[in-house]
Amino acid sequence: MAATAAQKSSDVDVLIVGAGPAGFMSATWLSNYTGLKVRFVEKRNTKVFAGQADGLQCRTLEVFQSFGMAQKALNDANHMWEICFWDPEPETGIIKRTARIPDMTPGISRFTQVVLHQGNIEQYFIDYLKEHGDNIKVERGVLPESISIDESKVDDNDAYPVKVTLRHLPEEAAEVEQFGHKVQNGLFRSANLMTEKDDDKSLNADTDVRETINCKYVIGCDGAHSWVRRQLGYKMEGEHTDYVWGVLDIVPLTDFPDIRHRCAIHSENNGSVMVIPRENGLVRLYIQLSDVERLENGMVDRSKITPEIISKCAQSIIAPYKLTYEKISWFTAYQIGQRVCNNFSANDRVFLAGDACHTHSPKAGQGMNISMMDTYNLGWKIGSVLTGRSPRNILKTYQYERRQIANDLINFDRKFAKLFSGKPGEIDLEEFQKVFAISHLFASGTGVEYDASNLIAKDPSTAPNLKEVVPPVVKAKDLAAKIPVGQRFMSYKAMNQSDARVWHLQDVMPSDGRWRFLVFAGNIKDAEQNRRVQKLGEYLARPDAFTYKYTPEGAEYNSAIQTLTVHCAPRTEVELDDFPRALRPEHDYWSLYVDDVPHHEPHTKCYEQYGVDPKRGCVVVIRPDGYVGYVGDLEDTEEVEKYFSQVLIPQRK
Amino acid sequence: MAATAAQKSSDVDVLIVGAGPAGFMSATWLSNYTGLKVRFVEKRNTKVFAGQADGLQCRTLEVFQSFGMAQKALNDANHMWEICFWDPEPETGIIKRTARIPDMTPGISRFTQVVLHQGNIEQYFIDYLKEHGDNIKVERGVLPESISIDESKVDDNDAYPVKVTLRHLPEEAAEVEQFGHKVQNGLFRSANLMTEKDDDKSLNADTDVRETINCKYVIGCDGAHSWVRRQLGYKMEGEHTDYVWGVLDIVPLTDFPDIRHRCAIHSENNGSVMVIPRENGLVRLYIQLSDVERLENGMVDRSKITPEIISKCAQSIIAPYKLTYEKISWFTAYQIGQRVCNNFSANDRVFLAGDACHTHSPKAGQGMNISMMDTYNLGWKIGSVLTGRSPRNILKTYQYERRQIANDLINFDRKFAKLFSGKPGEIDLEEFQKVFAISHLFASGTGVEYDASNLIAKDPSTAPNLKEVVPPVVKAKDLAAKIPVGQRFMSYKAMNQSDARVWHLQDVMPSDGRWRFLVFAGNIKDAEQNRRVQKLGEYLARPDAFTYKYTPEGAEYNSAIQTLTVHCAPRTEVELDDFPRALRPEHDYWSLYVDDVPHHEPHTKCYEQYGVDPKRGCVVVIRPDGYVGYVGDLEDTEEVEKYFSQVLIPQRK
Repeated sequence: MAATAAQKSSDVDVLIVGAGPAGFMSATWLSNYTGLKVRFVEKRNTKVFAGQADGLQCRTLEVFQSFGMAQKALNDANHMWEICFWDPEPETGIIKRTARIPDMTPGISRFTQVVLHQGNIEQYFIDYLKEHGDNIKVERGVLPESISIDESKVDDNDAYPVKVTLRHLPEEAAEVEQFGHKVQNGLFRSANLMTEKDDDKSLNADTDVRETINCKYVIGCDGAHSWVRRQLGYKMEGEHTDYVWGVLDIVPLTDFPDIRHRCAIHSENNGSVMVIPRENGLVRLYIQLSDVERLENGMVDRSKITPEIISKCAQSIIAPYKLTYEKISWFTAYQIGQRVCNNFSANDRVFLAGDACHTHSPKAGQGMNISMMDTYNLGWKIGSVLTGRSPRNILKTYQYERRQIANDLINFDRKFAKLFSGKPGEIDLEEFQKVFAISHLFASGTGVEYDASNLIAKDPSTAPNLKEVVPPVVKAKDLAAKIPVGQRFMSYKAMNQSDARVWHLQDVMPSDGRWRFLVFAGNIKDAEQNRRVQKLGEYLARPDAFTYKYTPEGAEYNSAIQTLTVHCAPRTEVELDDFPRALRPEHDYWSLYVDDVPHHEPHTKCYEQYGVDPKRGCVVVIRPDGYVGYVGDLEDTEEVEKYFSQVLIPQRK
Repeated sequence: MAATAAQKSSDVDVLIVGAGPAGFMSATWLSNYTGLKVRFVEKRNTKVFAGQADGLQCRTLEVFQSFGMAQKALNDANHMWEICFWDPEPETGIIKRTARIPDMTPGISRFTQVVLHQGNIEQYFIDYLKEHGDNIKVERGVLPESISIDESKVDDNDAYPVKVTLRHLPEEAAEVEQFGHKVQNGLFRSANLMTEKDDDKSLNADTDVRETINCKYVIGCDGAHSWVRRQLGYKMEGEHTDYVWGVLDIVPLTDFPDIRHRCAIHSENNGSVMVIPRENGLVRLYIQLSDVERLENGMVDRSKITPEIISKCAQSIIAPYKLTYEKISWFTAYQIGQRVCNNFSANDRVFLAGDACHTHSPKAGQGMNISMMDTYNLGWKIGSVLTGRSPRNILKTYQYERRQIANDLINFDRKFAKLFSGKPGEIDLEEFQKVFAISHLFASGTGVEYDASNLIAKDPSTAPNLKEVVPPVVKAKDLAAKIPVGQRFMSYKAMNQSDARVWHLQDVMPSDGRWRFLVFAGNIKDAEQNRRVQKLGEYLARPDAFTYKYTPEGAEYNSAIQTLTVHCAPRTEVELDDFPRALRPEHDYWSLYVDDVPHHEPHTKCYEQYGVDPKRGCVVVIRPDGYVGYVGDLEDTEEVEKYFSQVLIPQRK
């Protein structure tokens, strides 16, 4: 569909296609880069009202917190603290509680997993965008019709090589049929059982307005049947299984005692149920459907699945306990499949994220989380390149880092789904419980570790796909057992030296586009260590040091790379002036922290938690997305310079 | 000024005069009582933009939390964790840091003191009222002109005995001169140095509209020069001192190392400074002014006081450290005075609250807090009477309980101000530090303990003013060392039995107008204790028990008196069904808690914290405002019935 001559045309830095969680995370990140022109389009005309995804994992909450959004989610959500396993008693076949484990491994994050409706989560993003300048807004009822990349221009920073035609739908065509909203049909948005034709039906509506936009970058966050992916000709690889599951969101009436715990129930002969207690008394049930009608191609005939059928299955699995409901707010059904796209990017100009490049079963609460983490990985990279802070080659790391996670996800899900869908006689229930427990590190999102690249100063020999990206020029030292390079910087608490208040270190490093140079200064009461710290301070004060080199003339010190210091001398035995100016700029009371005993809460002993030697200390480079890029000694300033030279562009002559 | 014949007339349940913190707290409480008609008028046409009060004490934050508002304040505010004392060195006269203490005694609350601008706090209330139905709104530019009470009707529950004429000001007349907003004059709203004439100047403006309203109740929250108080003919008792203090809100430029700590600085000869670090890099300085011009009556000539004069005083006190500022956002000056009104209520129909009935020096951060706590005490009582839940006699306890606090405040302030304003040679600096430290319990608001009355089942012999109120019919037992009757129920954590999530117990008792009957059930694995719990459950299930008697027909169980249970049997060794239905209603998963080790945080051991014997347990009656009314044994149901019979009205035949 070519653009007509009369068509409106404009240039934009980024076009985000699809206002689901992945799209919103993109927009949220990009709103932190001043001066960008971002368009954000969504063909549906409202946010999600019921159903869909519902779990927020630990790492996602950490990221929300970095945007100041976690508290809302924590207030509104249900918090899950325990998983109960129910299995048939060998003698009677009656289900019994056989084990309890914490829902998340204690200590892996300051947050625990919470559950609430996707519509709330989208609202937090909408509120964030509104509060932060309102320069990026979702344009609803707008969908792309054509896309083309001018490959001759993809390496030109000033070019707009992606041309997209957008169509503005008349209101009725964009209206979504949502259960409890417009129609009583929860199946509409169930991607797993939908055909691509279903999803495209709005295309038959009468059109209103078309426009052409020339884009520097496009992010396709348009779901499992991604239009962007299809235009690029990329394929999803993987297969469907035979397992069919139904989902019910209900306010239950039941005598099952663990209805407010997360439960994994394997019945003897009737299949399995996963119980996910939700906010406002709701409970989500994932129910294995034993007897469903299928189409000729082996896929489920979704038109035959009703809430009554799903509920009946649930009742037979949970018997002898009774289960009915006071209210149903959503239902759907899906056939388990695990698929990953063969490519996440075209010329590092058009990117795919979220369901557009990986789909899998929803029970482990991974989909929405990994989708948001995709664009949390991508957003700052695009923002940095567009604002001239970073070279375009960092964009290569998006596919490199996130396809690995998508593959891990699919492998995890395959194993998990098989154990969950299997019959007690056929699978090992103890193994199931073990897999559940050890899966937490992965499922929480906190176990993610990116491979070596220019962004991750690790040993290149451990990275099988290194040829896809720019390799690291330096290698981190092993100076902090609990600050693994390539993983997110875990948050522990320290006290502000200037006012004795305790902070989670993550909270002094919000997601604002800045890099962090974190100095573990050690105990400066020790003369030798003090000398080392002073020497580092002298280096950082040099006008040619990275502290200045990557900061534009006239911009504030700390505005490109924020230097933060955590020392461990006794707080009351040192004064601010004992630290070099570079670590504690004049009239700056928010850069210097101490590991000491606070007045009002227990001592978190952050040096111990991070595994940093108080006599030696270390320096840590943290990416804008919170992942550790480099760890070295206080003297390793040359290495740090090399690291930055690969990922940042000097801003001064 | 009599109403004209043409004047609009209407009936309202409550008229709140004055939209400062006390007024907003009244409105917030009353918005929790469905169906009330509340008018809320304020003569100024905007909220406060700068200056004014700035401290939120622990108890105030607990109350904010009970309305779901604390998190916003905690996010926006500066948190103060330490006080540093600076005194002249005996040999040199140069100020040195002589001591540090925690800013609040650790352990007295789950919150610590925070500081932020009064305008933010007013905004939280505005947001709350908007989110909660928006049926109570501030009407700005509206002030009362006449008030009269028909004493023949004051005891009639259905009557509207208070007649008030309201005048709607034209916009200009209501405009407030605020520093940084309309005019560069911070002194405008400084009540302490203002004359009553100043405050009334808007009365000279042209009038627009008048109306008459007939009120059941009026709450005068109209500040130090309260119009309501003057109409009632009530007098403030107390005196002014000679000490004059200036206040500056600045972003400082200084080399004083403790500028982000709360500091009390006594210079040798130049007076004292209190440093209060604020949000957004601001610092408030309270500065003793040594040389000020006075009027003939001995009061300060405020027209002669400028920020430059105040700043110069500060510089001389803090020398040899330098102090200038980047930005000034407010200033004022006041002469210390401590005064309390002789009466807080007229016929228990018109009430005074906040500055309208007590004024004092601002340095201890008490004014705004005690003002809000006044109407937090009053709001639910008026709400309960108006909705027919409680007899009018509970209103007598407002003056009884709050005048005692006002007197304590004045005594505290007198001592504190004298020590702070005194010269190092004349006062004992060690005594000053001690008074500061022991004052925390009072200053935090957590030490408040109300005397015996029908609302507080304590020994009447300890209450000197008991004749003012209805005396208690029962006396609490000493079964919980850390649940003192008359004090607020301190919040510790317990786990929900149904989902293993940890809650602060206060958070399951929000300020919603309900009473709480809290059962410490003890260890029900003990057969004897279990028998006692079952017996209590049987009693509570009786249709004539208080659980039903005070709940209207058709209303939900728990809607008038919420029964909550905390047991201490091992969580995984008991099931929900082991507890009587009355303690754990069908399909209710939010009433039963357990003192056990949680998965993700330390065990708070709440039985130990509350001083409750696990083998005996106890029952606790908690008022809608969180104060403990009664403590007794599990068998003391007859006593509990007697208690409730004095403060609640049966709702069933």
